Amino acid sequence: MTKVAIGVDIGGTNTAIGVVDIDGNVLVKENILTPSHGDIDKYIEELSAAMRELINSVKKLNKNIDILGIGIGAPNANYYTGTIEQAPNLSFKGVVPMIKLLKLQFPELKALAITNDANAAAIGEMIYGGAKGMKNFVVYTLGTGVGSGIVVNGDLVYGHDGFAGECGHTVLVPNGRQCGCGGLGHLEAYCSAPGMKRTAFDLMAKYNDTKSLLAGYSYNDLDSKIIFEAAEQGDKIALEVFELTGNWLGQGLADTAHHLSPEAIFLFGGPTAAGDYIFKPTIESMERNLLATFKNKIKVLPSQLKRGDAAIVGASALVYKELEKQVE
Amino acid sequence: MTKVAIGVDIGGTNTAIGVVDIDGNVLVKENILTPSHGDIDKYIEELSAAMRELINSVKKLNKNIDILGIGIGAPNANYYTGTIEQAPNLSFKGVVPMIKLLKLQFPELKALAITNDANAAAIGEMIYGGAKGMKNFVVYTLGTGVGSGIVVNGDLVYGHDGFAGECGHTVLVPNGRQCGCGGLGHLEAYCSAPGMKRTAFDLMAKYNDTKSLLAGYSYNDLDSKIIFEAAEQGDKIALEVFELTGNWLGQGLADTAHHLSPEAIFLFGGPTAAGDYIFKPTIESMERNLLATFKNKIKVLPSQLKRGDAAIVGASALVYKELEKQVE
Repeated sequence: MTKVAIGVDIGGTNTAIGVVDIDGNVLVKENILTPSHGDIDKYIEELSAAMRELINSVKKLNKNIDILGIGIGAPNANYYTGTIEQAPNLSFKGVVPMIKLLKLQFPELKALAITNDANAAAIGEMIYGGAKGMKNFVVYTLGTGVGSGIVVNGDLVYGHDGFAGECGHTVLVPNGRQCGCGGLGHLEAYCSAPGMKRTAFDLMAKYNDTKSLLAGYSYNDLDSKIIFEAAEQGDKIALEVFELTGNWLGQGLADTAHHLSPEAIFLFGGPTAAGDYIFKPTIESMERNLLATFKNKIKVLPSQLKRGDAAIVGASALVYKELEKQVE
Repeated sequence: MTKVAIGVDIGGTNTAIGVVDIDGNVLVKENILTPSHGDIDKYIEELSAAMRELINSVKKLNKNIDILGIGIGAPNANYYTGTIEQAPNLSFKGVVPMIKLLKLQFPELKALAITNDANAAAIGEMIYGGAKGMKNFVVYTLGTGVGSGIVVNGDLVYGHDGFAGECGHTVLVPNGRQCGCGGLGHLEAYCSAPGMKRTAFDLMAKYNDTKSLLAGYSYNDLDSKIIFEAAEQGDKIALEVFELTGNWLGQGLADTAHHLSPEAIFLFGGPTAAGDYIFKPTIESMERNLLATFKNKIKVLPSQLKRGDAAIVGASALVYKELEKQVE
């Protein structure tokens, strides 16, 4: 039998679903709309129908398929309760018992679990990616926001109530930039993709640099990819954006390291495509901020999950982690 | 049989040794000098002789005593390797194999373990104190420095190499005050007992306040106890010291909470004797810095370990934790 797991990534606009084999390969996948109607029962029906269709198409490819379970990554998901709680970007109100509702649809499956996308990325890294065999590591996901998933002694840290790993909302700069959450000076306001854009605009204002390759973009049009391309062409503003972003991120990674003493910290998401432009100043800053006992010990690595499929692959990894726990 | 554990607290000047029962009561205790001669074999002999003497005196009180093991709290101690590594305040050079050396002296004991004093305080809180039954909590020890011990899923977080829990060296204020470790803006430089003194001197300089009750003390004479007594008499500088210290500490606790989502954070050490003066602004600042999902959930509590004996009691708790692990 070929063992596979279903991974579901619930975003504000789309829900991506994939069937993933034990090596992290996506066999088939599909997208459905995450509805704006707020009717959870209708959504569960649509989601279940899409999953059944995918299962059937996989079984056509290979009759000996064993579906182990469903893993879901979603905003404000609580692993302990199997719920999504007051997610601001989703139309469902209050506390949604996702796992309970899906168990009614798929009673035959052995493992169903939900967590947020950064935690799913961490479990994905552990099951399929660069953290195989590691017992203590952290994943930072850099995107529209900054999330993180923390693994200690081989297990994801959910904390007391299921919401651990919000490193994006630690304070880097007291009374600094306003974060999307309303707080001031949070890491997310500096090290997310929009954070990099904010830094670019700060710097253009500071230097009054009309010749920068970035100077022709509106606030709404500039993004981290454009900044990366400008850096590759030697644009001074773009290069300084990466220096400053790395400087801030390294400070945050050092704080995380001082808490947890991990073997490695993985960086995941759009801005990491810039490679050395972001990794070099990040690592330099982290090392500069570390206590002597921590220096030159902690690896800062790019995620090994494949970019496009990472969210569903990470979510599917939850299934393997659940089955491990059931064996213990 | 009455089960007891030996707790040892190795400080720069003194080594405190106590025999502790399962409720955290110290039955007998003694102090020996932590030597400055750097001869570890000689120290192990002196330490072992003192422990044997204590064991004998306990056995005179109660013949049915069962000595379970030895737990040690020491600076730069590595739980994984059982060693003390390059401790700047001890005369022993390099890596000292404490556990190995003590096992040769006490081969009959079932559990020997070593960790740093903040980790020992956390285990003490879990075995005997206010964290009984908690699976996710943190202890901050406020003293000459600031240490921390982190418990996740019922186990102490040692991290990849044994040195996790250095929350005192997270950055509160970028490019801020110089920390004892050489870093800038660390929590320890603001929230330790000397950090409070630094704040008092900053404020006297800021307001040119010659009438403050603190204005008659030299930099070397002022301490957190004097600041507390002045606050009780309504001294404005002293009161603002507590406000600012709590403000900084709360920012740090929120960062820790965003990493770990603990059930509670315990504060331990001299400055906590000030009660509401320090707890109130700390809690207010932490709550102000927390994401909505974390607000009003995390308790900030005084340590329940008895002040004078806390270090040996905490160290002795390591023994019970080791025995738990051996059963698993």
